[in-house]
Amino acid sequence: MRRVGIASSGLTKFTKKDSSMESLMISSIKPIFDNTKNLTQKDVDVVLTSTNANDKYLANIVSELSGISPKISHSVESLCNSGTNCIVSAFSYISSGLADVALVTGAEKTNSPGLVLDWDKSRGQYKHPIYWSSLFTSAHMRKYGTTMEDLAYVSAKNHRNSLDNPNSCFDHSYSFDEVMRSKNLTDNVRLLDCSMPCNGSASILLASEDIIRKFTENPVWIKGIGQKSISAGFTKNKDLASMQSTMFASSDAYSMSGNSPSDVDVAEVHDAFSICEIMALEDLKLVGPGRGADFVRDMYNTENKKINPRGGLIGTGHPLGATGIAQTIEMFQQVQGTAGKRQVEKARTALVHNMSAAATSSTVLILQS
Amino acid sequence: MRRVGIASSGLTKFTKKDSSMESLMISSIKPIFDNTKNLTQKDVDVVLTSTNANDKYLANIVSELSGISPKISHSVESLCNSGTNCIVSAFSYISSGLADVALVTGAEKTNSPGLVLDWDKSRGQYKHPIYWSSLFTSAHMRKYGTTMEDLAYVSAKNHRNSLDNPNSCFDHSYSFDEVMRSKNLTDNVRLLDCSMPCNGSASILLASEDIIRKFTENPVWIKGIGQKSISAGFTKNKDLASMQSTMFASSDAYSMSGNSPSDVDVAEVHDAFSICEIMALEDLKLVGPGRGADFVRDMYNTENKKINPRGGLIGTGHPLGATGIAQTIEMFQQVQGTAGKRQVEKARTALVHNMSAAATSSTVLILQS
Repeated sequence: MRRVGIASSGLTKFTKKDSSMESLMISSIKPIFDNTKNLTQKDVDVVLTSTNANDKYLANIVSELSGISPKISHSVESLCNSGTNCIVSAFSYISSGLADVALVTGAEKTNSPGLVLDWDKSRGQYKHPIYWSSLFTSAHMRKYGTTMEDLAYVSAKNHRNSLDNPNSCFDHSYSFDEVMRSKNLTDNVRLLDCSMPCNGSASILLASEDIIRKFTENPVWIKGIGQKSISAGFTKNKDLASMQSTMFASSDAYSMSGNSPSDVDVAEVHDAFSICEIMALEDLKLVGPGRGADFVRDMYNTENKKINPRGGLIGTGHPLGATGIAQTIEMFQQVQGTAGKRQVEKARTALVHNMSAAATSSTVLILQS
Repeated sequence: MRRVGIASSGLTKFTKKDSSMESLMISSIKPIFDNTKNLTQKDVDVVLTSTNANDKYLANIVSELSGISPKISHSVESLCNSGTNCIVSAFSYISSGLADVALVTGAEKTNSPGLVLDWDKSRGQYKHPIYWSSLFTSAHMRKYGTTMEDLAYVSAKNHRNSLDNPNSCFDHSYSFDEVMRSKNLTDNVRLLDCSMPCNGSASILLASEDIIRKFTENPVWIKGIGQKSISAGFTKNKDLASMQSTMFASSDAYSMSGNSPSDVDVAEVHDAFSICEIMALEDLKLVGPGRGADFVRDMYNTENKKINPRGGLIGTGHPLGATGIAQTIEMFQQVQGTAGKRQVEKARTALVHNMSAAATSSTVLILQS
C-alpha cells in the first residue's frame, strides 16, 4: 500500500457569522495555497468536499473558484463524520495510485440539515441529538456511577483548552461552576455539555510518499485507518454505555498502524456532548472501562492537554462537515510540532476519533511523523 | 495496483411511479444478494450511495436495511456522474487494500434537486439543461453542418434499442418521424431529443482480484479509469462543439487500460440529449471529428447496437444518481455475454461515458473480461 501523508492544512475561524458554503471552503483552501511551497493548482488531482448542506456539484464549484481542474471531484456525506470519510476516500485515491495529490475541504453552516435526525423513525419525536446523548449519559451513570460533576469537567477542560485555539467560535472560556449551573436541556444534559453548531471550514492537503516532500519537509503520515458502521437507527447499539462502532474502528486502526492504545500521545475525540469524551476514552482503550471520568478529572486538575488540545467540539464548535477535518488538522500540527501554545510534548503518535449519529458509525485515524 | 472487478449487479425498472429513496435502493440491492453465489452481508466492507437527493446518512440507512454493517459507508454526489464517481471511489477503496468487497447503489426520483442548475450564475435565467444542449447543438451545427435529422436518428435508434431493455421507463419506442414531429423546446432541441427524469435505482458489486471468484466465475475487470473536471460553470468549455472533459477523461482511461479507441467493441455514452451522443462519439475518438452524425445514421440503418445497446439515457430514462451505475451494468453484461437480446457480438472491450452539467466533468471507464 502506497503511503499517504498530510502536507498542509487551512482553517477558518469557527463563528456564528453567516457566509456562503463556497466562501467558507475557499477561505480555508486559500491558506493552503498561500503557505505550501511549490504547490500550484495543477498539482491537485482530487478535490473532495465534505458537508451536510444540500448544495449540488460543490466540489466542482469550489475547484473552479480555486483555479483547479482536478481529475476526481465530488462531495461526500455521512453526517458528523463526513470529514474523516472524505479524508479516507482521498487516502484511497492516492494509495491506489489513481492520484498523487488530494485537497479535502469541509464546511458547514448553523442551519445545516444534518443537525436533526429526521430520518430515524425509531426515535419518535426525539430527533434532536441531545436525546441520544441523554440516553448515553443515563446508561453510563447506571453502569459506572458517572456524575454531573464528571461531565462538567469535560466541558470546562475543553473550553479552557480552546482559549489557545484562535479558530474557536468562543472568545472566552466557561468554568466548571458555569457548566454546573448552565441550563438543563434534559435531566442530565446541560447546555454547556453540548457542542455548538457554527459556521466554519477546514481543508487539508494529502499527497503520496512519492511527491509529498516537494510540498513539505515535515510530512505526517496516515498510518492507521479504522471505520465501522453498526447501523443508522439508534436501536442497534446494544450497550448504551459504550460505542461499538468506535471499538471496532479503533481496533482496526491500531492493527493497521501496528500501535497499541498506550502508544497514543495525543488525541482528538468526538465530544459532541460531554458524555462522549468519557465514553470515547474507554472505547478507544486509552483508559480502562469506567475510568474515563477519572482520567478527565485528572487532566483538568493537572492541565494535561493530551485529549482535545484544541478544545474538541465543545470548546471549538461543531460545523459538521468540517469537524473531522479540523480534528485531523490539530493532530497533524501536534505531530509536526507546530501546534504553538496547544503543543503537547513529545506528540509522536496522534489519534483522531470522529463519529456520527449516536456513534452508529465511527472513524479512527492514527497519524505519525 | 490491485485489480478490481465487477461481480454482480441489480436494477429496478425505471419508472414514473413514485417510491422512497431507500425502497428504490433496496430494490436494486436485493437481486445482488439473491443472485450472487456465496455472497453474505458480512462480506461487504463498503457501501456507497449515489444520489442528488437531499437525504442524509443514506449509506448507513441502506446498509442497515440490507443487513450490512460495513466498515466504510457514505454518500457521493456529483450531479449526473455521481454514479461513476461512486464506482471509482469504490474501486480505489479496494485497489488500495482498505477493502475487499464494495456495494455501490444509486437512485434518483423525478423531483431530484439535481435537475436544475440553480448554482450556476453564469447561466442567468437559463438554468435548465435544455439550454446548454441547445448551445451545444448550435455550435455543432455551425462547425459540422449537423441537422435536425441527424439528431432524430440518435433518439430513434436509442428508443428502438430500448425495446429490448426490460428496465426502460418506456413501454414503446418512438420512430424517426415521431422524433422529428415532437414539440420544440428550443430552436433546436425537441422533447424527444431529451432524456427523461424518472425514478430508478442501479446497484453493482465490486471485489478485489483476491476474492472475486468466490462470487462469480465470470468477473469483468475495470481496466481503465479517466476522470476530469474542467469547471462547474458553463463558460469555461471553450469549444461548444466538443466536450473537453470527455476528451481528457477518455485519453487517461485508454492509457490506463492500454487500449485505443479502435479496441472498443461496445459503449454506453451519456446521451442526456441527442447532440451529446454525436459529440461523445467524436470526443471519445470512436469516430473522427464531425463524423458522429454519419456514424449514428449508419447504426440506425444497419441496426447496429454498438453504442447504447440498452437505449442510453434517452431510451431508458435518466435517474441521475443511478445512471452511471446502470450504464456500467450494461457494459458489464455485454462483456460477460449476458446481455440477452441486447448482446453485441464479440463484446470484449466496453466503454462507459458518464458526464455532468454540460460536460463540465466526465468519467470514462473501460471494462474487459
